[in-house]
Amino acid sequence: MNGSANINGRANVEQALARLNFKPRELEPGHVWLAGAGPGDPGSLTLEVLAALGQCDALVYDALVSPDVVAVAQGAELFYAGKRGGKPSMKQDDITALLVKLARDGRRVVRLKGGDPYIFGRGGEEALALAREGIPFRVLSGLTSGLSALAATGIPATMRGINKAVILATGHAAGTDDDIDWAALARTGQPIVVYMGMANLPLIAAALLEGGLAPSTPVAVIVSATTPQERILVATLTTIAEEAAAAGLASPALIVVGGIVAMRAALAGEA
Amino acid sequence: MNGSANINGRANVEQALARLNFKPRELEPGHVWLAGAGPGDPGSLTLEVLAALGQCDALVYDALVSPDVVAVAQGAELFYAGKRGGKPSMKQDDITALLVKLARDGRRVVRLKGGDPYIFGRGGEEALALAREGIPFRVLSGLTSGLSALAATGIPATMRGINKAVILATGHAAGTDDDIDWAALARTGQPIVVYMGMANLPLIAAALLEGGLAPSTPVAVIVSATTPQERILVATLTTIAEEAAAAGLASPALIVVGGIVAMRAALAGEA
Repeated sequence: MNGSANINGRANVEQALARLNFKPRELEPGHVWLAGAGPGDPGSLTLEVLAALGQCDALVYDALVSPDVVAVAQGAELFYAGKRGGKPSMKQDDITALLVKLARDGRRVVRLKGGDPYIFGRGGEEALALAREGIPFRVLSGLTSGLSALAATGIPATMRGINKAVILATGHAAGTDDDIDWAALARTGQPIVVYMGMANLPLIAAALLEGGLAPSTPVAVIVSATTPQERILVATLTTIAEEAAAAGLASPALIVVGGIVAMRAALAGEA
Repeated sequence: MNGSANINGRANVEQALARLNFKPRELEPGHVWLAGAGPGDPGSLTLEVLAALGQCDALVYDALVSPDVVAVAQGAELFYAGKRGGKPSMKQDDITALLVKLARDGRRVVRLKGGDPYIFGRGGEEALALAREGIPFRVLSGLTSGLSALAATGIPATMRGINKAVILATGHAAGTDDDIDWAALARTGQPIVVYMGMANLPLIAAALLEGGLAPSTPVAVIVSATTPQERILVATLTTIAEEAAAAGLASPALIVVGGIVAMRAALAGEA
C-alpha cells in the first residue's frame, strides 16, 4: 500500500463515518465505562470505544493497549494499570479503588483493556465493585483476540464440517488446585483456544492428551497477532511444547488446539 | 441523552478519529473482504469495517445487518443475500458464486455478515471457496453477539470464581444425526452460549440435564440485544423451554446456560 492509498483510505473512513447514523452516548461525570480495545491495531477499535476515548477526562489503561489508542484520549489524565519494566502491576483492589475514587470525584472515566473486558479481563470483578458502590457503569465490548487473532492468521474459529462449538479457556491456573478440567474439555471433541497458557503449555498439552485427544491433533501458537512482531508456530499436541520452547515463543500468546488449525494451510494466504 | 449531547458526541468521535493513527488498507479491485458488522447497533462497527464500507463498490449483505450500516456503502451496488418475506434465502453456493463473479469483474467487494464472519457465519466456507478460486480475500472480524450481547445485558462471559472457560455452540442441528455432544459440553462444568438454538430449546435443555447439569442451573434467553426490541428471560434449565414458549420468544436469540447468568442481578443496572 502506498502513501496516496493511505490518504484516500483516511478520506474514505471519514466520509463513511459522516454517512453513518451513529449517535454516541454521552459519558457523564461520575460514570465509568469499561471498554475493550481489541487485539491491538487501531482499526480493531469499535466506534463506541472511539467515542468513549474522545469524551473521557480520566483513562485507566492496561499494558496490552497500544500507545496509538491511548493517544486518542488527548487531554485526559492517564493512569497506567499494567506491568512495566519488571515493576509489579497495580493490584486489582487498587485498580477498582482508583475507578471508584475517580467516579466519586465526578470524572468521566474510561477503563480500557486489551481485547474484551469480559473475556478473562477481570472486567467482571471491576463491574461488580462499581455496582456495589452504586457507581453507574457500562461495558463496551472489544474484539477478543481468541477469535480475531485467529481469523487474522487464517484460522476460522468455526468451520462447517469440522466443529459446531469452540471453547475459550484460560491457562493461567494450569497445574494448580484451581485448574480447569482439561480432560473434560478434550472429551467434547471441540477446538480449544487457550489464553494466558504459554507458561503452562507442557502441562496443558499433556492434560489434553490424557483426556483423549489424538497425538496428531494440530496445535498453533500465535504470538502478537496483527502486529509486525507476529509469529505463528503450527505443530501437534505431542510436539508443540518442545517446538515452542525451541523457537523461544513467549507470552502473550494464544494456543489453538483442534482441526480448525489445519484450515490455515488454505486460508492464510490473505490479500 | 438530549440532542446537544448527540451533537457533541458526533463532534467527539470525529475529533477522536482525527487523532487516531489509523491507516486503512486499500480494498483493491478484484479483492473480497469478509467483514462482520457485530450485533446490530452502528457503534459496534470496527473502524476497519467502516473503512471497508467506505471503499467497496459491491456489497453483499445478510438479513441481520442493519439498514443504517448498509447505507454507509453509498454508491456501491447492493446484493441482498438474506431471507426476506418468506422467500427462501440465497443458497450458499449461489452466494460464493456471486462473490467469485464480482471479484473476477474487478469489483471492490465487501461481504458483510451480522456478528463475526467466522463464528457460525459460514464465512469459513466462503473464504475457502475464494481461496480455491485464487481470489485475494481478507477477514475483518466483528463483535460476536454471543459475547457482546451478553455483556450489554449484564452477563459477563467469564467471571473469576465462576468459570475459567466459556463454550460457544450452535444449536441448529440439535436432535439430528449431525448433532453436537451436549452431554460432553455439560460435563465440562463451563457456561455454554448457544446460537441458533431457539427452535431446539426443549431438546437442548433436556440433553444438558441428561449430561448432569443441575436442574437449578440458571439459563437466559436474549432476543434482539442492544435494540429497542430487546427481551430477556431468565429461568432454570428445567423451566426455560416452557417459559420461553409461554413468553412467545423466537429466533434470532441467544441461550446462555450457567452460573454467569446469575451475575445479571448485580450487573444489569447499567448507566
